[in-house]
Amino acid sequence: MVRRIAEVFESCLGPPPSGEVWIGDDAAVVARPQGRLVVATDAVVAGVHADLAVSGLADLGWKALTSTVSDIGAVGARPGHAVVDFCVPPATDVVLLASGVAEAAAEWSCPVVGGDVTQAAQLVVAVAVTGWLDGPEPPVLRSGASPGDRLFVTGPLGGSAAGLRLLRAGLVEPASALAAHLRPRARLREGACARRAGAAAMMDVSDGLALDLDRLARASGVGIALDTVPVAEGASEEEAMGGGEDYELVIAAPDVPRLAAAFATMELRPPIEIGRCTADPRQRTLQGRHFEPTGFQHDLG
Amino acid sequence: MVRRIAEVFESCLGPPPSGEVWIGDDAAVVARPQGRLVVATDAVVAGVHADLAVSGLADLGWKALTSTVSDIGAVGARPGHAVVDFCVPPATDVVLLASGVAEAAAEWSCPVVGGDVTQAAQLVVAVAVTGWLDGPEPPVLRSGASPGDRLFVTGPLGGSAAGLRLLRAGLVEPASALAAHLRPRARLREGACARRAGAAAMMDVSDGLALDLDRLARASGVGIALDTVPVAEGASEEEAMGGGEDYELVIAAPDVPRLAAAFATMELRPPIEIGRCTADPRQRTLQGRHFEPTGFQHDLG
Repeated sequence: MVRRIAEVFESCLGPPPSGEVWIGDDAAVVARPQGRLVVATDAVVAGVHADLAVSGLADLGWKALTSTVSDIGAVGARPGHAVVDFCVPPATDVVLLASGVAEAAAEWSCPVVGGDVTQAAQLVVAVAVTGWLDGPEPPVLRSGASPGDRLFVTGPLGGSAAGLRLLRAGLVEPASALAAHLRPRARLREGACARRAGAAAMMDVSDGLALDLDRLARASGVGIALDTVPVAEGASEEEAMGGGEDYELVIAAPDVPRLAAAFATMELRPPIEIGRCTADPRQRTLQGRHFEPTGFQHDLG
Repeated sequence: MVRRIAEVFESCLGPPPSGEVWIGDDAAVVARPQGRLVVATDAVVAGVHADLAVSGLADLGWKALTSTVSDIGAVGARPGHAVVDFCVPPATDVVLLASGVAEAAAEWSCPVVGGDVTQAAQLVVAVAVTGWLDGPEPPVLRSGASPGDRLFVTGPLGGSAAGLRLLRAGLVEPASALAAHLRPRARLREGACARRAGAAAMMDVSDGLALDLDRLARASGVGIALDTVPVAEGASEEEAMGGGEDYELVIAAPDVPRLAAAFATMELRPPIEIGRCTADPRQRTLQGRHFEPTGFQHDLG
């Protein structure tokens, strides 16, 4: 079975030096005398993360870079540069694939500065991105939430899952759901803003809100009490809770007015309050009813 | 067909800013106010770069990290940190795979600081590595050679190809050839030393000397006249010219005594002189006879 990278390396890697963050969060933060370099990586596999029957190679390329850039934003950093590995079956239109990567690189100001093309039986695009943490504030990790912190998301959820469902049914509306699936956005400005506004914990919703919130809760040792889940246009509540690859940020913040003011000052869409962190680390509730921490299965088969 | 990453991105990415090196060399060099960050990536695909019938998962992991670290060394930089994407079929022993990555990370002082595990039909390990260029000297690129520069390699060649052939025949000697295939070395100290000693051009031999020298010659606009090719123990001359994944460095140097003295001072094995760069950019000769720029086909099938 597939295992998490933190488990995989548990027995053979020591702890990071003080002040550094290694495996286990959205992005790694490594201290350097002259600043803090951030590095993240992610792979998109055809048939697992993207269904080429309904999305194009350029869309897959866009998603591969955007999902990694999103990890950089999810600690509050800004992206620097990307390197890309294309593992491709012989007939693949690699130029089309690369065009989507390049579009995303331009969109997120994260130039592709290296990479490799390798033959393979299955299409895989692996992207690594460096980033930088400016200023004195610490990175915003999954582990920083405390009981009482309010929980926010940067946008409605489930759009990507709905978009995939609609595309498979041959439907073309609502366009926002299709776009959420084919051309997801990385919430970079929101992540940087939340960091400056004293957010306690943050991550991007890549595997579904229920599963990703469970990860944040476990890392922080808190419980989760949700009041509401904002559902994207065209999506079901189940898709909003369990659908993956929305890449909206979930933020735990102790100082709600400060967060709201920071978003307003930067003219960002106001963060949507969804609930709070609680003292009971086992609590996972939505409007008082338990929810299961299951999410997107990453299986399109 | 599989294309080089530089071709793939040719039409959709602009040129890098002055002083930076993007796609096309062994590693990318990106200027930063406080120093020069280097980033490289490489992927190892089971059945293409590694035959799991004769090498273990830990060996594959070692090779994936080492080949990327080698790219960092091949511009004269030192490695910083690595991020790793594992794309694995369900039954894969990911811990064993990771143990080989971690062994190499320890060997090359390049801690793994992030990554991802994803399900896939074919085993792929993609590794990205950051590195740093200390001091004022420029990175040593493929494009810096001039006619008259002497050519060197840091060790005998063909060991990896010979090792694969021997393993498939069920043979266990010479051990040096098996080790060259299963546990290749990255020539980091040699690369840094060559940079300090004023090397004009450098790259690692990953696809075979004939093909990689052809790349260096094209990038520099020079010809190649080889006098000799050092053959690794157990290897044939054909394997030394065309076998890939030796990861020895090939170096073009204008000042031979300076290079030799620098290697001696650092107590490194003396670089082996193999020929020179010439003014005729079409020349590719070994002892006066033309050689074809064909190399390792990366096909174990």
